[in-house]
Amino acid sequence: MVEVRRIVVVGTGLIGTSIALAMRKRGTEVLLTDRDAGALRMAVELGAGEALADGDAAEPADLAVLAVPPAAVAVTLLDAQKRGLARVYTDVASVKALPLAQAAQLGCDLSVFVAGHPLAGRERSGPAAAQDDLFLGRPWALCAPPEAGPEAVAAVTALAEACGAEPVTVDAEEHDRAVALVSHGPHVVSAAVAARLTAADDVALGLAGQGVRDVTRIAASDPRLWIGILSANSEPVAEVLEAVATDLAVAASLLRDGSEGAAAHVADLLLRGNAGRARIPGKHGGDQKTYAVVPVMIPDRPGELAMIFQAAGIAGVNIEDVSIEHSPGRPLGVLEISVRPEAADRLATELRARGWSVPG
Amino acid sequence: MVEVRRIVVVGTGLIGTSIALAMRKRGTEVLLTDRDAGALRMAVELGAGEALADGDAAEPADLAVLAVPPAAVAVTLLDAQKRGLARVYTDVASVKALPLAQAAQLGCDLSVFVAGHPLAGRERSGPAAAQDDLFLGRPWALCAPPEAGPEAVAAVTALAEACGAEPVTVDAEEHDRAVALVSHGPHVVSAAVAARLTAADDVALGLAGQGVRDVTRIAASDPRLWIGILSANSEPVAEVLEAVATDLAVAASLLRDGSEGAAAHVADLLLRGNAGRARIPGKHGGDQKTYAVVPVMIPDRPGELAMIFQAAGIAGVNIEDVSIEHSPGRPLGVLEISVRPEAADRLATELRARGWSVPG
Repeated sequence: MVEVRRIVVVGTGLIGTSIALAMRKRGTEVLLTDRDAGALRMAVELGAGEALADGDAAEPADLAVLAVPPAAVAVTLLDAQKRGLARVYTDVASVKALPLAQAAQLGCDLSVFVAGHPLAGRERSGPAAAQDDLFLGRPWALCAPPEAGPEAVAAVTALAEACGAEPVTVDAEEHDRAVALVSHGPHVVSAAVAARLTAADDVALGLAGQGVRDVTRIAASDPRLWIGILSANSEPVAEVLEAVATDLAVAASLLRDGSEGAAAHVADLLLRGNAGRARIPGKHGGDQKTYAVVPVMIPDRPGELAMIFQAAGIAGVNIEDVSIEHSPGRPLGVLEISVRPEAADRLATELRARGWSVPG
Repeated sequence: MVEVRRIVVVGTGLIGTSIALAMRKRGTEVLLTDRDAGALRMAVELGAGEALADGDAAEPADLAVLAVPPAAVAVTLLDAQKRGLARVYTDVASVKALPLAQAAQLGCDLSVFVAGHPLAGRERSGPAAAQDDLFLGRPWALCAPPEAGPEAVAAVTALAEACGAEPVTVDAEEHDRAVALVSHGPHVVSAAVAARLTAADDVALGLAGQGVRDVTRIAASDPRLWIGILSANSEPVAEVLEAVATDLAVAASLLRDGSEGAAAHVADLLLRGNAGRARIPGKHGGDQKTYAVVPVMIPDRPGELAMIFQAAGIAGVNIEDVSIEHSPGRPLGVLEISVRPEAADRLATELRARGWSVPG
C-alpha cells in the first residue's frame, strides 16, 4: 500500500476541491493551485489546503491531481512535469483517450501518469459546491497507459480509495464509449428535452410532474464545462445521439401511422426501455434493492421527523431511505420511509399506535 | 360547494384505487367496479370501498370516476350512463381531446361529463401501488365540454380538491399539447435512452451515475399502459419527438464536424436546456426553492436518524427535505439535510456539537 502523504491539486473547481477536502479529512497535506485566483482563494478558505507558492522549491509531492478540462489535461501535465510538481500524476477528466493521446504527442512522461475519472458530480460547479463526501461509493475509472509503472498505478488507486470511491480499471477507448452511453449522451438528450420547454406556455409548465423534472435535472448543468467534455468525446457521443434520434424519429412516424402494427413497434421501444433501465445497478452498487415504502402524513414543523424516526428506532426498524413531498399551501407533508419489506408492517403499526396517519 | 357523499369508481388500477382511498379517508361512500375481478378484490381488501353489485338498483351516486385507459373512456361513459350509475361523470385519462370526441360521437350526455386528468402517477401500477396521498398538491386538469352544466363542473372540482389536488381548468387540445411536451414526449425519450443500455457491457453500466438514473427512471413504467396514452395523443407527441430527434441529429453532426463554430451551436442547445429546465416550477408549486444542504455522516443503524432530527428540532431548525446516500460495503451513510439557507450554520453547529461529522 503506497502512502500518499502530500498531494498537489491543480484546478480548484468542484472535483479538484472535493478531492482536496476528502484528502485533508484524512490528514493528507494538500497544496492547491488554480489560474483563477478567486477560485483558489475560496478553496483555501473552505479548508481544502494551502495555496501552492509559485516558485515552490519544495520536494515533489507524492501525487499531483490535474483537475482541469479534458482539452487542458495534456498541456497541464507537461507543465507540471517540467516543474517537477510530483512523483506521480493523474487527472479527473470525463474523457480519457484524447488527453492520453495528446500527452504522448507532447512527450509527457507517461510512466508516472495514470489517467482517472471519478464518476461523481453535481449540477452546481466551482469550489463552493465541493463536498468531501462527493465520491463516497462512486466508481472511479482508472486508465493506465502501457508505460505506467506499478507505483504510479498504486498511488492513484490509493487516492481513489482514500476518497471513498471504488476504483475501476478500464481501457481508455472503452471508457469513452461507456461514458458516452451512460453520461455524455444522456446529458445532451436531457438538454434537448428541456430545450423544448423554452417555448412552452405557463399552463403546460403547470402540468409538469416528477417525470419531466427527473429527465431534465442534468440539463441544469454548466454548458461551458460540458461543451469541453462533449467535444473531446465527439465520435462516441455522436453515435449515441444518432441512435436515440433515429429511435425517436421512427417512433414519431409510427405514432402518425396509427395502425395496430405501428403501435406494437412503439411498444417494443418502451419494452427495450424497461430492459435497459433494469440493467442499471442500484445506487448501493449491487442490483436495484427494492424496499417497502411507508408513507406518513407529517405536520411541517420542527421536531416532527425526530419523533417519527425515534418511533422507528424503538420498533428496531432500520431506515434505508427517506423522502419528503410537501403539498403547496398546506402545513402538511408526506414522509416516505423506505425500509426492508419485512419491517414495513412493524413500522406502520408502531407509527399508527403513536397517532400518525399511515395510509394504505 | 357541492356535496360528494357517494361515488362509484370504475377501474381499480393505481389512479382509480388511489382516488377511492383518498375519498374514503374523508368519509365518502365509495363503490368499486373493475373488469378484472382480482384487481377489484385487492382494491376492496385495501379498504378502497365496497364492490358494486352488478345489478345494483341503488339510486345514482353523486359522481362516477371512470379510471380506464384513454381508448376505453367513451364506451365506458356510454355504458355507465345507460346504467344510470351517477348524476355526474368524470375520467382520469392522460389524454382529453380524443375521448371527448368519441363520447360526443357515441351520443353520451356531455351535460353531466367533465373530463379530468390528475397529474400524478408512479412507475408501479395496479391497486397495490395505490396511495391515498398520491394527489396531494398535484395539478388536476379539468376539461369541461361546452355542454357541461355548472353542477357537473362543481362536483368534479370538489373531487379534485377532496383528493388534495389543485384543479386546473384547461381546453382539451391545449391539455394534450401540454402533456405531450411535459409528460408523453419525455417518456418516450427516456425509454429511447434506456433502450441504448440493453447493448451496454457491464463495465459501461458500472460507470452509470445519478444522471442516467434520473433520465431513465420513468422508462421503467408499464408499456401496455403507455402505448394506450401515446396512441391517443399521437400527433402532439410525434411533433415533440421529431423536434427532439432533429436537435439530437444536428448535435451529432456538429460534434463530428469538430469546428469551433460547430461546438458553439452544441453549446447553444445546452444553454436552451438550461433555460427550459429553469422554467419548470418547483415541487412546492412556486419557483424552484433553493435550500442549503447540510451533509452528515451517519452510522447505518436504527435510532441514529432520530437523534439527528432531534438535534435539529432542539436547534429549532425545520427540515425541508432529506436524502440518504449509502456507500457500498461500508456501515456508513451520508444524510443530506435540506434547510432554509439561514438555518444551515445553526444546524451544522448543533450537529457538530453533538459529535456528528458535518463536512464543509
